Amino acid sequence: MGPETVVKRKPAPPAAVRFDPAPFLPLLELDDRLTVQILTLFLREEVRKTGLGRVVLGLSGGIDSALVLYLAVQALGPGNVLAVTMPYRQSSPQSLADALLVVKDTGCRHEVIEITPQIDAYFGRYPEASRLRRANKMARERMTVLYDLSAREPALVLGTSNKTELLLGYGTLYGDMASALNCIGDLYKTQVWQLSKHVGVPRQIISKPPTADLWEGQTDEAELGFTYAQADAALYLLVEERRTREEMTEAGVPEAFADLVARKVRNSQFKRRLPVIAKLGSRTIDRDFRYARDWGL
Amino acid sequence: MGPETVVKRKPAPPAAVRFDPAPFLPLLELDDRLTVQILTLFLREEVRKTGLGRVVLGLSGGIDSALVLYLAVQALGPGNVLAVTMPYRQSSPQSLADALLVVKDTGCRHEVIEITPQIDAYFGRYPEASRLRRANKMARERMTVLYDLSAREPALVLGTSNKTELLLGYGTLYGDMASALNCIGDLYKTQVWQLSKHVGVPRQIISKPPTADLWEGQTDEAELGFTYAQADAALYLLVEERRTREEMTEAGVPEAFADLVARKVRNSQFKRRLPVIAKLGSRTIDRDFRYARDWGL
Repeated sequence: MGPETVVKRKPAPPAAVRFDPAPFLPLLELDDRLTVQILTLFLREEVRKTGLGRVVLGLSGGIDSALVLYLAVQALGPGNVLAVTMPYRQSSPQSLADALLVVKDTGCRHEVIEITPQIDAYFGRYPEASRLRRANKMARERMTVLYDLSAREPALVLGTSNKTELLLGYGTLYGDMASALNCIGDLYKTQVWQLSKHVGVPRQIISKPPTADLWEGQTDEAELGFTYAQADAALYLLVEERRTREEMTEAGVPEAFADLVARKVRNSQFKRRLPVIAKLGSRTIDRDFRYARDWGL
Repeated sequence: MGPETVVKRKPAPPAAVRFDPAPFLPLLELDDRLTVQILTLFLREEVRKTGLGRVVLGLSGGIDSALVLYLAVQALGPGNVLAVTMPYRQSSPQSLADALLVVKDTGCRHEVIEITPQIDAYFGRYPEASRLRRANKMARERMTVLYDLSAREPALVLGTSNKTELLLGYGTLYGDMASALNCIGDLYKTQVWQLSKHVGVPRQIISKPPTADLWEGQTDEAELGFTYAQADAALYLLVEERRTREEMTEAGVPEAFADLVARKVRNSQFKRRLPVIAKLGSRTIDRDFRYARDWGL
């Protein structure tokens, strides 16, 4: 899910993506059981530390939020997990149906909150606004709804962005990228697929093409111009293994694709950092004043 | 401006705030000219690096956003600064009048965008929602409007939170605390007052009691239960000088007040950090994968 890049993206040179990621995918394989153990422990522990017992998350009908839901239910119990589906009038009914499927399967709490009135009220004054602007406003509106419900509960907001999206910047800053805790933010998309099978996400959600559901027929991979498997192969070498451009080329990643991915990672770094504060004092927030998020709990 | 703490605040023990901060205030005095030089250079340089030439900020009618506006206009020229006032139907007309005053004085671009329709559309389903929930939703709605306009321009969103607010957690996470650049985030409130005089913010804005303008007669200091001068005195010793509780007491800050302020700083740390990602890979975002925000520019 990541509208930011919809319009800005320059089409990738076709040669760049003519490569088979299959040989790299074993690198990304996880120990399913251990990973689920780590992630459920993470959720339990981080939630407990805040003194809250509950979490809230946006459930889109896609695989990322479904995986987070299954992990959260396993960690905290279905009664402590509130999933919220927030359709816009153009959202696919199939997305809601898929969301309801996992709600039923997990037994979690669920609410459907339409964002159409708020979005249309705002864009009434900007009929010419681009698809990108609308998509980002919607992603941010959903964040504000989740934070509002988190205050009502009270609960912590769980993030549902995976590592591939976060590294490519394929998401909305202060929208779907904003949360209190993210248990899948260190999982590449291919790892999300793997783990989803393990925790029991229904096959129809695992097998459908990833989409931010912004317009009919939209798919992430068509928009990006490459597959998640290709992205993950290149990202794994670049980020986890710190391979140079030359080493990536030698390993079999086309130079143009290695460059494309590296450029996306660099150009989206601002989405993964806090606001830059002009330094004046002896201890500046996020510079010399940097404690853990739960310092003081 | 910081609704988060409105309801959660426990009343400060009266003894805690029976102290005169005046002897500490010289510690906070700035070299006006040098500070303005640093901050305008910061704005010019950080905006230039992104390849954009313009900025957008929320102009509330209060002193913080007024100071940011004067600095931005000095750094980038009035035609490159878009100030946006986003009243809700309960906002004071005086706030808008004060915003218009500085717009006229600086010659910047200005838009007024009502957030009433979006906010009322959402809370129609939650008539019982607390003042706190409404205030936070409004702060976040304003953020989404600024980010939407920043895409339209294109421009960078300037933050308007000062260091006192940021340290006390007296602001809305992913609302007024969210921005691309914050040129006053390392200035304590008393320093904001000082610098505002220097850059020419009109006296009526400098002298009025700080308020988030959430309801009639609301003032920050009444809500907090202490004055900004008192907070700044304690925060300066605690944060800039790293004084211990004992050293603060010796210096003349009542123990209960030192504790109160330290507790607020610790308990709001989560608002000054990124989402916590469960670590699985060898390089995790905001853990072992930490470049500058403008890495790649």
